[in-house]
Amino acid sequence: MIREAGRTRGRRGPTTPGGTTRRPDYRRIQNTLPNAEIFTEDQVALIHASALNILEDLGVRVLLDEARQRYAEAGARVDEATQMVYLDGALVESALRHAPQVVEVAGQTTDRAITAGGDALIFAPGAGCPNVTDIVHGRRAGTLEDFCRFIQLQQSFDVISILGPSVEPQDVPPGLRHYEMARAQFACSDKVPFVYARGRGQVMDAFELHRLAIGVTEEVFQSKPRTFTVINTNSPRQIDCPMAQGIIDFAEWGQVSIVTPFCLAGAMAPVTVAGALALSHAEALAGITLAQIVRPGAPVVYGAFNSNVDMRSGAPVFGTPAHVQANLGAGQLARYIKLPWRSGAGCASNVPDVQADYETQLSVWGAVLGGANMVLHAAGWLEGGLTISYEKFITDLELLQTLAEIMKPVGCTPDEIGLDAIADVEPGGHFFSTPHTMARYRTQFYAPLVSDWSNYESWAASGGKSATERAREVWQERVQTFKAPHVPSKRLDAMEDFIARRTREGGAAPES
Amino acid sequence: MIREAGRTRGRRGPTTPGGTTRRPDYRRIQNTLPNAEIFTEDQVALIHASALNILEDLGVRVLLDEARQRYAEAGARVDEATQMVYLDGALVESALRHAPQVVEVAGQTTDRAITAGGDALIFAPGAGCPNVTDIVHGRRAGTLEDFCRFIQLQQSFDVISILGPSVEPQDVPPGLRHYEMARAQFACSDKVPFVYARGRGQVMDAFELHRLAIGVTEEVFQSKPRTFTVINTNSPRQIDCPMAQGIIDFAEWGQVSIVTPFCLAGAMAPVTVAGALALSHAEALAGITLAQIVRPGAPVVYGAFNSNVDMRSGAPVFGTPAHVQANLGAGQLARYIKLPWRSGAGCASNVPDVQADYETQLSVWGAVLGGANMVLHAAGWLEGGLTISYEKFITDLELLQTLAEIMKPVGCTPDEIGLDAIADVEPGGHFFSTPHTMARYRTQFYAPLVSDWSNYESWAASGGKSATERAREVWQERVQTFKAPHVPSKRLDAMEDFIARRTREGGAAPES
Repeated sequence: MIREAGRTRGRRGPTTPGGTTRRPDYRRIQNTLPNAEIFTEDQVALIHASALNILEDLGVRVLLDEARQRYAEAGARVDEATQMVYLDGALVESALRHAPQVVEVAGQTTDRAITAGGDALIFAPGAGCPNVTDIVHGRRAGTLEDFCRFIQLQQSFDVISILGPSVEPQDVPPGLRHYEMARAQFACSDKVPFVYARGRGQVMDAFELHRLAIGVTEEVFQSKPRTFTVINTNSPRQIDCPMAQGIIDFAEWGQVSIVTPFCLAGAMAPVTVAGALALSHAEALAGITLAQIVRPGAPVVYGAFNSNVDMRSGAPVFGTPAHVQANLGAGQLARYIKLPWRSGAGCASNVPDVQADYETQLSVWGAVLGGANMVLHAAGWLEGGLTISYEKFITDLELLQTLAEIMKPVGCTPDEIGLDAIADVEPGGHFFSTPHTMARYRTQFYAPLVSDWSNYESWAASGGKSATERAREVWQERVQTFKAPHVPSKRLDAMEDFIARRTREGGAAPES
Repeated sequence: MIREAGRTRGRRGPTTPGGTTRRPDYRRIQNTLPNAEIFTEDQVALIHASALNILEDLGVRVLLDEARQRYAEAGARVDEATQMVYLDGALVESALRHAPQVVEVAGQTTDRAITAGGDALIFAPGAGCPNVTDIVHGRRAGTLEDFCRFIQLQQSFDVISILGPSVEPQDVPPGLRHYEMARAQFACSDKVPFVYARGRGQVMDAFELHRLAIGVTEEVFQSKPRTFTVINTNSPRQIDCPMAQGIIDFAEWGQVSIVTPFCLAGAMAPVTVAGALALSHAEALAGITLAQIVRPGAPVVYGAFNSNVDMRSGAPVFGTPAHVQANLGAGQLARYIKLPWRSGAGCASNVPDVQADYETQLSVWGAVLGGANMVLHAAGWLEGGLTISYEKFITDLELLQTLAEIMKPVGCTPDEIGLDAIADVEPGGHFFSTPHTMARYRTQFYAPLVSDWSNYESWAASGGKSATERAREVWQERVQTFKAPHVPSKRLDAMEDFIARRTREGGAAPES
């Protein structure tokens, strides 16, 4: 007799289940899971102290003149010949005192506001990929059409709380891409939009378009955080011009810099998790300090996206033990300095296969158990970010929605336990038709996005599709039925006028 | 510029990496992750009290005469007409006082001994499946050849600590299967073997074969736990004859019963997680109490394998929010009664696809964060246990090995942090050739079993295989190169003589 294995043969669910009326709310997820820790308190303090040593004794090369000048004015030692900036502990600690512990970011609409900090958990889409893939057309360079479709998909699922540039629209000239990116984000979504820090010109254009899209004055725009950028240091110990410029501009305008070293242990960081974290921590502190020098209290997020490389090839890998451990350790460092923190998920697989799935889920769990407030690249990333997959975007959402469900409170009143129901059912019987079940069955359980729970015969009879094949149907249906949120035509017109004028002026080329 | 996305172009790993000399030890995993909790202490006490109410007021139907007699002799109220047994709280609490909090199970060899309890974590293979599948030959009824191959695969990977009957050898007559199962487990493995509780005849045969295989007297065999069975109650509130008999026989012989209600919320249990756990807890306590009545101190493991059903079809589902929450809640109940506990992973997918992977991983995380000491069905299960997949067995092992790695201590001495190495590398440089890296790169990182980390072009050039296709190569290579551990021929001969005699006598038919 098969016991644990086997369906409940001969038992049927309620015969008239009707449609589900379950309407789960994934907009503001609270992480109720405990933080996992890999370091003792002393070890966390040692890593922090090591990072301060790095900043004071070894320094950071800062390529932007204006940034070095800002550091120097604040008291840092600067060597103009080598472009090195040396920060003492007091300057860093002062910055940490000024940085807000919780950052509230206004949405385009009220119910899309997000919080970074505390136990808030934000999932963000895979981003920054030059290529795109789907299981019918395969891997190819990203286009504007792909970029827009991914914004639509991001808008379609509440478990994705903020927007991200999933794919680079390579069919648009580099100096005009930021207009298309802004237009898509405001025309197709009301979620918090993203801006690339590719030089002051593009950033100022993006802020202006955002201001026009929400119809406020420049003063009102600057009055609260509304958008964000990701600042990647050039590890080890270097901050290039557009990144330093981005920190300055976002701080001046009161917008959010997520300062994220991308330290891969063994390549641009020491081969140990502790060493990679010490370097990453130092670089994040350097960027955060610059933001606080520019404007004390500027909204910043402590970023840590650290994994390792395959030592045989030098290739970045994700979802590895070192990646998970680095996530857990980074969370301890973030709590040590009391800042909201952003992690990164990912996978190294070249196709949306089982490897892509287990690597992504492992890295997401590392971020969640590390207490990350923001998990970037949580859906769709392949090849360490060289490609975004439409189908993987959907299958990853199933994981994220499941996590959001797990974090909800579980009822445990006597009524929910249901001793009466247990008394109702004879030994060996079933609970399908008890009042306790009938009152709850429509809304009790999570309804999956893509999982197929039918038995083998039914599944085979309906085409025998894999989850990835079904995911294709899901994203295509969402794109085909997509309805954009309403934006007053006056605002859209203002944006179009601005874009037309700036395009005539030649746009704003990315800076390097 | 692609920042977070993108390989470390132009950077190469050490040019002569040689073979890895990393020899990780996965034999005794300690779960260093925190326990996640879904209930308050009061709620845990309420569920426990509700379970005691179920046992005292509603009772459990026990189909085996001998078992009812044992309960009655111990003071339980028994109604022979209805076969109902009513246990008062004192009887249950007395049993819980006698049950060992930690169970040490002797391996066939010393270094295969396992511990159930404390922070010990044991992964066990998918088991109990009537069907088997591989990606070339597809889904079919299990055979003895499949059974033996899975034992070989279980033996081949240390992260699997105990054996399990992955697939039912349907080409062997039911009354002789237990001989073949025992022969394969002792001839091909030195890990702790499994015995089905399919009636006293089969169990006694299995104990005798075990005794002969390790060459000890009956007295010595009984002197410590050496093997285990899984007792599934017939939820709700029923224990059938072979299960009750198994509890009695394993307790008398000092062997381990894992008493595991398989309560699927909405079907054989209340539709709520709290209600399903209350029923499951009651049933587990009923079985554990019987074992302690038979022999105070008998080794038992508290089992809880609770998920939900799809309310549209009544089909069991796994890796759902309710499954994960039930794992976390069951862990709280296990710690409340201070017993070692066993959980179950699983998936409902019909093929080894991305769904199969994410459901399995979610359920494994639920078990691990629930503090389970034993995670059964952690590798290979498909279709809620109706089929075992060769390829999924391998891809699931990648997850389990990664988890084992994550739980190892992370070094954080000044030498491991490596400030000297950071000083060695100029801003924007790389760490590949620093002494800190060179001293560690061969052993620092986990070497994957099946993950492919090569870039897209290399991966495509070498055949563009999915993880599941590569997993096929892995299991086939392991089977082809399998070397069985040594068993003295005298012992093998004794086993063969016994099997031949018992076969002539007609074997032992399974009881129901």
